[in-house]
Amino acid sequence: MNKPSSRWIAETETHIEFFDLDPMEIVWHGRYVKYLEMVRGVLLDTIDYNYRQMKASGYVWPVIDMHLRYIAPAIFGQRIKLRAEILEWENRLKIGYLITDAQSGRRLTRASTTQVAVDIATREMCFVSPPVLLERMGIAAC
Amino acid sequence: MNKPSSRWIAETETHIEFFDLDPMEIVWHGRYVKYLEMVRGVLLDTIDYNYRQMKASGYVWPVIDMHLRYIAPAIFGQRIKLRAEILEWENRLKIGYLITDAQSGRRLTRASTTQVAVDIATREMCFVSPPVLLERMGIAAC
Amino acid sequence: MNKPSSRWIAETETHIEFFDLDPMEIVWHGRYVKYLEMVRGVLLDTIDYNYRQMKASGYVWPVIDMHLRYIAPAIFGQRIKLRAEILEWENRLKIGYLITDAQSGRRLTRASTTQVAVDIATREMCFVSPPVLLERMGIAAC
Amino acid sequence: MNKPSSRWIAETETHIEFFDLDPMEIVWHGRYVKYLEMVRGVLLDTIDYNYRQMKASGYVWPVIDMHLRYIAPAIFGQRIKLRAEILEWENRLKIGYLITDAQSGRRLTRASTTQVAVDIATREMCFVSPPVLLERMGIAAC
Repeated sequence: MNKPSSRWIAETETHIEFFDLDPMEIVWHGRYVKYLEMVRGVLLDTIDYNYRQMKASGYVWPVIDMHLRYIAPAIFGQRIKLRAEILEWENRLKIGYLITDAQSGRRLTRASTTQVAVDIATREMCFVSPPVLLERMGIAAC
Repeated sequence: MNKPSSRWIAETETHIEFFDLDPMEIVWHGRYVKYLEMVRGVLLDTIDYNYRQMKASGYVWPVIDMHLRYIAPAIFGQRIKLRAEILEWENRLKIGYLITDAQSGRRLTRASTTQVAVDIATREMCFVSPPVLLERMGIAAC
Repeated sequence: MNKPSSRWIAETETHIEFFDLDPMEIVWHGRYVKYLEMVRGVLLDTIDYNYRQMKASGYVWPVIDMHLRYIAPAIFGQRIKLRAEILEWENRLKIGYLITDAQSGRRLTRASTTQVAVDIATREMCFVSPPVLLERMGIAAC
Repeated sequence: MNKPSSRWIAETETHIEFFDLDPMEIVWHGRYVKYLEMVRGVLLDTIDYNYRQMKASGYVWPVIDMHLRYIAPAIFGQRIKLRAEILEWENRLKIGYLITDAQSGRRLTRASTTQVAVDIATREMCFVSPPVLLERMGIAAC
């Protein structure tokens, strides 16, 4: 069992575009999945294990679970801060997210995603994360 | 506390379009939120309380929580069956979803969304569902 | 030079979902590209030359030109009829589109897309459509 | 008749996210409409006449025509430069776009959009651009 660490955290900022708004003039709830992926990409770049490197390592990492809690809406033009942190890695890659208003720091959305490694060659799901993930994270494999 | 009932269930079918696929040639996980909304619309139509009637009743119902579990991927052209069921209504509107392969019945995705009523006039969140929801569901208000 | 023919036409219907609306409560203009692809898929199915068969034939057909003229907006719940017709095929695949209100027949949007064949093996663009397209269309190659 | 001027040009950069890719591992052609809107927003901010100010001035400006020419595909992680320029303004707002590879300057996509003013109060389309647009552009009304 591993516990949350502050070693694998990434942050980025973006702002709300018109095309992500719904008739309430707030971001449509389904559009937040993009924000999660944006900052997840930044996080995975820091350990040099983003989409391309995953594929080159012989694995794809589909999302098998996603949970979002919407605390406050986001509106047109608003600058938001996206934060992602690796929470689990041994058997699956679980990432926690926090989206805040960039100026006030007010919490807007909390989320998590869980991915598992699938061996590209055999198409089989791995019940333990392949060593390449831990190598990239700079920790000894279990 | 209310328990799941089979009275408020809706189903519809659709098929997988090219524009929802990712480089793995499967539906990108964020795109499933659309499928949830498609069948939620069908469900809300059955109780005559979809987006327009909500607004006319003085409330909007933002999604405050969403959870998806991806069991198996969906591919180009695949026909999928979408099923939605109202699970809770007293204080919030919680809907459960099941997406299956239309032909084999194989489970692809499970999900749930929770919405709360917000009074359009006061912009305040309601901690108890407004009577209009229960009226539309044909049950006595608590 | 070939001229429009009524032999390669397809139609389908859909309705406007909430997630495609913008703050004006009309379909966001960029979302129409999906409607074009939906009916293009129906059209390409009629000649058995949709995405999968294209790939199996050794070609991909990227869109190189797209033009949309928006005549009237579409609103939540509206049923729309999508119509696609092959306009050119000798050197490129040009398809014309008409989106109308399903009930009144009122014109909403006109569009066209142009695709060219790219040989998957050589990654080269074909300046003349490969014979497989004309075979599927049931016409003699030029 | 007005001719293109270099006074109303804006540029911004972004990079290609995974969620915008299609099975060819390139950006799906319909997703480019977002890039156009991203840089159009930057351009309209420079004349202080973006979505909010348009609405406050009593007008909405729906897109009535859009044309895209795809020259070369964009791939995962690629940095792209977005450029927008006001081409016409007297009767309608026509903007031209150029998307290039940020590093090499290679042209990827050319596009244009045309918007017309619609009076929010009367819901009527304006055949001449309202004076507010020209004021914001810093030119004398015709």
